[in-house]
Amino acid sequence: MPEALRAIVSANEGYSAAYGEEAAMARVANRIREIFEAPNAAVYLVATGTAANALLLAGLCSPWGTVYCHADAHIQRNECGAPEFYTGGAKLTPLTGADGKIDPAALRDVLAVAGRRDIHSVQPGVLSLTNATECGTVYTPEEIRALSGIARAMGLPVHLDGARFANALVSVGCTAAQLTWKAGVDAMSLGGTKNGLIGVETVILFDPVRAREFELRRKRGGHLIARHRYMSAQVEAYLTDGLWLELAGRANRSAALLSRLLQKIPLVTIRYPTEANAVFGDWPRIGHLGLQSAGVRYAFWPQDCSIDGDDSEMLQARLVCNWATEPTDVQQLAEILDGVLSNSA
Amino acid sequence: MPEALRAIVSANEGYSAAYGEEAAMARVANRIREIFEAPNAAVYLVATGTAANALLLAGLCSPWGTVYCHADAHIQRNECGAPEFYTGGAKLTPLTGADGKIDPAALRDVLAVAGRRDIHSVQPGVLSLTNATECGTVYTPEEIRALSGIARAMGLPVHLDGARFANALVSVGCTAAQLTWKAGVDAMSLGGTKNGLIGVETVILFDPVRAREFELRRKRGGHLIARHRYMSAQVEAYLTDGLWLELAGRANRSAALLSRLLQKIPLVTIRYPTEANAVFGDWPRIGHLGLQSAGVRYAFWPQDCSIDGDDSEMLQARLVCNWATEPTDVQQLAEILDGVLSNSA
Amino acid sequence: MPEALRAIVSANEGYSAAYGEEAAMARVANRIREIFEAPNAAVYLVATGTAANALLLAGLCSPWGTVYCHADAHIQRNECGAPEFYTGGAKLTPLTGADGKIDPAALRDVLAVAGRRDIHSVQPGVLSLTNATECGTVYTPEEIRALSGIARAMGLPVHLDGARFANALVSVGCTAAQLTWKAGVDAMSLGGTKNGLIGVETVILFDPVRAREFELRRKRGGHLIARHRYMSAQVEAYLTDGLWLELAGRANRSAALLSRLLQKIPLVTIRYPTEANAVFGDWPRIGHLGLQSAGVRYAFWPQDCSIDGDDSEMLQARLVCNWATEPTDVQQLAEILDGVLSNSA
Amino acid sequence: MPEALRAIVSANEGYSAAYGEEAAMARVANRIREIFEAPNAAVYLVATGTAANALLLAGLCSPWGTVYCHADAHIQRNECGAPEFYTGGAKLTPLTGADGKIDPAALRDVLAVAGRRDIHSVQPGVLSLTNATECGTVYTPEEIRALSGIARAMGLPVHLDGARFANALVSVGCTAAQLTWKAGVDAMSLGGTKNGLIGVETVILFDPVRAREFELRRKRGGHLIARHRYMSAQVEAYLTDGLWLELAGRANRSAALLSRLLQKIPLVTIRYPTEANAVFGDWPRIGHLGLQSAGVRYAFWPQDCSIDGDDSEMLQARLVCNWATEPTDVQQLAEILDGVLSNSA
Repeated sequence: MPEALRAIVSANEGYSAAYGEEAAMARVANRIREIFEAPNAAVYLVATGTAANALLLAGLCSPWGTVYCHADAHIQRNECGAPEFYTGGAKLTPLTGADGKIDPAALRDVLAVAGRRDIHSVQPGVLSLTNATECGTVYTPEEIRALSGIARAMGLPVHLDGARFANALVSVGCTAAQLTWKAGVDAMSLGGTKNGLIGVETVILFDPVRAREFELRRKRGGHLIARHRYMSAQVEAYLTDGLWLELAGRANRSAALLSRLLQKIPLVTIRYPTEANAVFGDWPRIGHLGLQSAGVRYAFWPQDCSIDGDDSEMLQARLVCNWATEPTDVQQLAEILDGVLSNSA
Repeated sequence: MPEALRAIVSANEGYSAAYGEEAAMARVANRIREIFEAPNAAVYLVATGTAANALLLAGLCSPWGTVYCHADAHIQRNECGAPEFYTGGAKLTPLTGADGKIDPAALRDVLAVAGRRDIHSVQPGVLSLTNATECGTVYTPEEIRALSGIARAMGLPVHLDGARFANALVSVGCTAAQLTWKAGVDAMSLGGTKNGLIGVETVILFDPVRAREFELRRKRGGHLIARHRYMSAQVEAYLTDGLWLELAGRANRSAALLSRLLQKIPLVTIRYPTEANAVFGDWPRIGHLGLQSAGVRYAFWPQDCSIDGDDSEMLQARLVCNWATEPTDVQQLAEILDGVLSNSA
Repeated sequence: MPEALRAIVSANEGYSAAYGEEAAMARVANRIREIFEAPNAAVYLVATGTAANALLLAGLCSPWGTVYCHADAHIQRNECGAPEFYTGGAKLTPLTGADGKIDPAALRDVLAVAGRRDIHSVQPGVLSLTNATECGTVYTPEEIRALSGIARAMGLPVHLDGARFANALVSVGCTAAQLTWKAGVDAMSLGGTKNGLIGVETVILFDPVRAREFELRRKRGGHLIARHRYMSAQVEAYLTDGLWLELAGRANRSAALLSRLLQKIPLVTIRYPTEANAVFGDWPRIGHLGLQSAGVRYAFWPQDCSIDGDDSEMLQARLVCNWATEPTDVQQLAEILDGVLSNSA
Repeated sequence: MPEALRAIVSANEGYSAAYGEEAAMARVANRIREIFEAPNAAVYLVATGTAANALLLAGLCSPWGTVYCHADAHIQRNECGAPEFYTGGAKLTPLTGADGKIDPAALRDVLAVAGRRDIHSVQPGVLSLTNATECGTVYTPEEIRALSGIARAMGLPVHLDGARFANALVSVGCTAAQLTWKAGVDAMSLGGTKNGLIGVETVILFDPVRAREFELRRKRGGHLIARHRYMSAQVEAYLTDGLWLELAGRANRSAALLSRLLQKIPLVTIRYPTEANAVFGDWPRIGHLGLQSAGVRYAFWPQDCSIDGDDSEMLQARLVCNWATEPTDVQQLAEILDGVLSNSA
């Protein structure tokens, strides 16, 4: 995103305090507090989403606790055990639920069982939600409140993996507060990397009581960046004049267009409701080969699915749009796919 | 078990080297090597099965690895995250399979998926089997070989939780070697506590290459016992003249009798094949209440099941026999239950 | 100790709850509460001193904290990093002080420096004392209060490694409360193993607020013993009619005698005041060789000292007496040494 | 450094593989291999020096091992226990030595003692050197070879914290290979952040056998950056046409000038030889106050020293020059200090 680069270049003026003590970071923290209507929130920046989530979970879940998350959650599938590492060996308990969203009944059942266990079992620790989800769907405030209510009734805090939070927020159209702490979220990551920034994720602790602990965990994890001003400058630009939401909105609109166009193609099935910036579509393997030979690059879903088989085998694409995705890109993809599949039929 | 106590009392003579350096420990190690036909095996004693398994797994699975085990495994359900703690945060991947035994197809599928994953996922670590299983069933050498073959094809070592290994061995009727290293097991715990000893479990590493590392992990975990002679004396007695197998045989026979008697009672269903020393039976709640009021003590299964409900609700008992269980105990239990259920019908 | 064995044998009657739920454990806990005048204390048993101390420190010191202890402390030198393991990677900061006792000025200085540090440094965590010390000396209540006062002024809790607490208590002649919580100790281990028991150490948390956490850490560490009644039976006997103090008194008297006799021998220097059950003496290497060839077994001090050199080189012995050490044993050792050194002079 | 920014801006063109798979990273790795004459070296980038060192040490030192380092080392004093965290609880053993350099005799002595220890102690793990040191001095290849030889004789690998390696290399004037692997270094960090880059440190494993493990540790630690091209672009520019050495040379020359000028001022004592980019000078407190009121910002040394006291108390400044430090800056500082101290005399 050009604004990110401009911010970095502008930040390169004169001397500045390091390690987040620079003035821009104070402005970022205040801006976050305003946007989230959370005047006491503690705000930090780290370079990766894995760090943001693992550090947060370590503060919310004891080593003998368990993190309840969706079976498809990034923390469960894509972080090489970072939550286990940072928590000191907590267990992740994957939950089921359609469209990448945790089924409240599944959470209620597993907590009921956990409540009957004793000291020989790992203990209930924290509920972790992801919004927008790994399937490109979005939790509403009501849905989050339902899940967080079940968790809180057992005394569990609620973590939100907000790597794509801007996409969710734009999709729902409510306030940031309504989609987070007002719905029961205690702490969250707010993605920048997937939405145009260069290696910056924001961490928000709505209750600052564990702020100092977070700072120590961050340093100890090697995630306290000396040249912090290049991060805070980016986030400051990102939060100015709603830029973060504008970028997310562009990505969402491209995904919506892509979803509509793909649905018109015979042999293509869209798997989940397209509510944010990702589209998941099934079509025969030959269609994927055609797109690849045309230079289109994307991942299959799940990422660890088998891609062997004959040309007619159905494979699912995970197509992610971002702020830079143009409608013409989307149309071109759909046209290529339509052509390949028509010819092969 | 009286022999355990006699051994402890006999060990209390004169001075002795501590920390496993006593002569009796050398005899125990040699005896294990003879019994298992494994002249190079490294042999250790610890006080709990949780320690034995967690220390072994820590040597076999890296912190970023995953332990494949049955969903009902003790390491997954009953050790408060000890494997996670000792491995430095490895993940446990629970597998399905009837009667407490891992389904080879389930293992093959999960490993096929794992083989397609990259550095963002936890890595395949170790296969952990339990014999006899948590459901009172027993793996045969062929079944173990099938599973260990799948694991080894991916380069994974195989761990055996042998808390009830003596019961399995008596049940199968093969040699200890056939049921372990000849079937692909790399390291195992050999239970004593559940079979008459006072706080002693034996650890066997068939390949001694990691013996020194095990010793350091044991000390670091606080599991190197100073007054070790009271442990080695017990195990020496246990392994003399086949006492360990005799005790296990008694327990298995009591369980078989119990299973036969319970099956004759209307309203009682035996859930898993009774192959070792545990019987799992379903019957209406009123039957459990009757047994309890008669002073019978046992756990429900799963241990975290709900025990609320009305008198006719089916609940499952986990009835475990040991070397001291008498046929008359078993008959008495069956008679009480029969009486209660007949009256309530 | 015969009483320990008798207690184990007596405990082997009938069925009993496991995992510390047996009636004897409740009696042990109450007895500890009486002896220490601490009606709210939480009391646990584990099998090793390493486990007792490491589990306690893990509850008192965060992973990013540091444990202040004497440079000779068992936790620093003899536990293969168990405190580091259980705390999740805390640092141990060794302090100086004569005769194995921490110098209050050294503690004050290091805390003053720590108080000027920021988030880039490990944080002050806990003060760990050992009484009786590794050098066979004893802290008085006043000395403990002085050190704990410095720690508490910085908000640090105080841990006591009481592997030889009985020896210290007999030596000082005050109440158990005066030597512990009344002097500022928050949690402690109370040794059994070095004073006649078979693998039992008692853990006391004077403030029970972290009791549940301790229970989870104990289970997770593999230190919750199923056949717990054989441990509680021993400790019950140990605490009855002051047996634990009588045993410690015998050991202390033997050490005092040994110290007196050794001091009469030319060429022998006693290094530290003999205040508990250990005597540290320097004499030429030839004297050690003579004792060894007469069958006397003991360690050098420090345990990692070089024992190479010629016959006249001074080496220090660490001579530890226990409840079973007889005055005649002590006299015999002194006579042998006197003879060897006289002949070699 | 303007080149770093230009590189970032240039990297922002078109699509690129993420997570270090981009073409620029391959070029960086090859460039490092050329510069270090190490064709098999594995090369990685991370965002902080703490991460680089802690991840490297975790691969070189077992959890029950100890890291031998200088008492002033950054890993010992300034990383909030990151090495302990990443290694899973290894101990750091601080060593003495003048001018921030480890005394070979101190290393030899501590290893001799360690070699006499048994399983109850932490085990020798790895030797960690820092070049240039925390005191602004520089190890020569001969000095490194002497220390690494002692370590290797015990089987220990050697780690180099090269946060200021460029400054050391320019100072010594030898080849990069001579100052590292040819002198016995196994793995190192190569600083970028302190020499003009924005959050990039390079990791070099001269023996690639542990490369895969490093990749997993990096991901698991949350240190695998998605937008990696902005890091590799910077490092590529940094290594082009010797820019990294030119920048370091500028900093070293400024420090040399500063040192010369300060030595001319009465009441100023330069503490360590000025061999790299840092100058350590003692002078009365009033001089520090004068500089501060003139807007000069620097840290005291050690960073946790007490800065209380009267105007005449001697306090030590740690003055670090970088590529952007101008001779006029240096002269101005010296003039201000000279003026303040002259007036106060």
